[in-house]
Amino acid sequence: TAAEVTRFVEHVRVDYLPHTVLVDCTASAAIAGRYAEWLAAGIHIVTPNKKANSADLAYYHRLHEARRAGASHYLYEATVGAGLPVVHTLRDLRETGDEITSIEGIFSGTLAYLFNVYDGRVAFSEIVQEARRRGFTEPDPRDDLSGQDVARKLIILGREMGLTLELQDVRVESLVPAELAGGSIEAFMAQLPRYDAAIAERLAAARARGKVLRYTGTLSAAGEATVGLKELDAHHAFANIALTDNVVRFATRRYCDNPLIVQGPGAGPEVTAGAVFADLLRLAAYLGARL
Amino acid sequence: TAAEVTRFVEHVRVDYLPHTVLVDCTASAAIAGRYAEWLAAGIHIVTPNKKANSADLAYYHRLHEARRAGASHYLYEATVGAGLPVVHTLRDLRETGDEITSIEGIFSGTLAYLFNVYDGRVAFSEIVQEARRRGFTEPDPRDDLSGQDVARKLIILGREMGLTLELQDVRVESLVPAELAGGSIEAFMAQLPRYDAAIAERLAAARARGKVLRYTGTLSAAGEATVGLKELDAHHAFANIALTDNVVRFATRRYCDNPLIVQGPGAGPEVTAGAVFADLLRLAAYLGARL
Repeated sequence: TAAEVTRFVEHVRVDYLPHTVLVDCTASAAIAGRYAEWLAAGIHIVTPNKKANSADLAYYHRLHEARRAGASHYLYEATVGAGLPVVHTLRDLRETGDEITSIEGIFSGTLAYLFNVYDGRVAFSEIVQEARRRGFTEPDPRDDLSGQDVARKLIILGREMGLTLELQDVRVESLVPAELAGGSIEAFMAQLPRYDAAIAERLAAARARGKVLRYTGTLSAAGEATVGLKELDAHHAFANIALTDNVVRFATRRYCDNPLIVQGPGAGPEVTAGAVFADLLRLAAYLGARL
Repeated sequence: TAAEVTRFVEHVRVDYLPHTVLVDCTASAAIAGRYAEWLAAGIHIVTPNKKANSADLAYYHRLHEARRAGASHYLYEATVGAGLPVVHTLRDLRETGDEITSIEGIFSGTLAYLFNVYDGRVAFSEIVQEARRRGFTEPDPRDDLSGQDVARKLIILGREMGLTLELQDVRVESLVPAELAGGSIEAFMAQLPRYDAAIAERLAAARARGKVLRYTGTLSAAGEATVGLKELDAHHAFANIALTDNVVRFATRRYCDNPLIVQGPGAGPEVTAGAVFADLLRLAAYLGARL
């Protein structure tokens, strides 16, 4: 409860310790809603929780004002691509005066996997079923298929680029049929095969043009943000990733002929914990620790 | 001269400034030889100069002891891959407890370019000539073709992995014929066509096996370090980079099924300056600046 969280924060914030850091490993919007208050009080925050940075812009600005007012640090590398150097790399580029032209990528390990595997021989709904069994999807696969998770990551990167994007500004193509958005997980999984023909048709159409289907996110310098299924050339870098790989491609003024690309597993407990731990060490260095 | 460098260091190190940082953008071994003394005196160093970290191990250890003794920071992200997040990423992985299995990559933009372009239709020596004209090689192309620059980068990464490697431990396949190692640049360029047949044969042999030729560097956890021409599968990630791209692939305990890959232009004044500047901002953050 909120009262318990308050008691917890009071408990960790004691005068005889020089620094307090809260590591929020939940995905809770309620916890993320407290960040501004904590940062203003000088409490540092390290988190893989996307909710604060993808909340409405007013809160986002309040967060960063609170951070400045509290002289506290707010580190969230793990929010995009887990342990892959994404937020970091983007910030280094911007802070050293580069201009970001576009960011494109496959930001969901789940959706990467589904379309890496889907070749038309096995029905799409069966691949979803199998991915769920193997733990590659959220308990409710609609959380992945809706594209909302990818949209949140785009918002985080877009704001890091300096864009004033709101979540509703992202054009999201959801793979969850509107009729199945509500209801139980079981009902959803049972109904999903009815939509296999439609997605099989998309694949066939892409193939007829020599393309493959990939679920991507794209951000432009002009502030356009789109998330959805895209037909890509079979030789495209995004067409040749494996398993649950994420891939992020930064095109910038400096990296114009060839973009800067970061690729690899972008989700999972181990790599996420690694990223949170790396942020914690970075915080220690900022606070004067000699590592 | 050494005396001038000493006077310069005395000049920048004044009591009324809280911090002193020297940014060494030379490639000088003599300047790099002074780092230990400066770090011990509390002067921070930011540099793209590979010479200090690839010097003999005794000096390398002395450097890092001096850094600890002087409570100073020594930042050198730009030594490998310029602005690509390489040193950084490796350090985060190690410091958070990951174990590096191997690091493989194309670490030379020049050699990447030469073998991306070389398809047997134009003689290799002509491609070298053309690359030199376009400024893609060092003034003396032997500095690239010898593989020494790649070997130095491997040493830097190997030591970052915790290996006790000396430069002479790296097995380097030089593309400079032994007879042409000495003498003027012009004599070298004039003689190079005599070796075109030999390299054309290597390409033909690779092709007969369905492979391509790429100049790569490889480090194993066991401490094996090799640099040279390798036959790669045509679908290999390293076979499909463009222009002067570098690519670095980290296989670790966490990134075991799929490695973590960083790719993009890894040399050039703009991206190198960007990396040096990013290190400088990081230093400022370590010293308490609120950015």
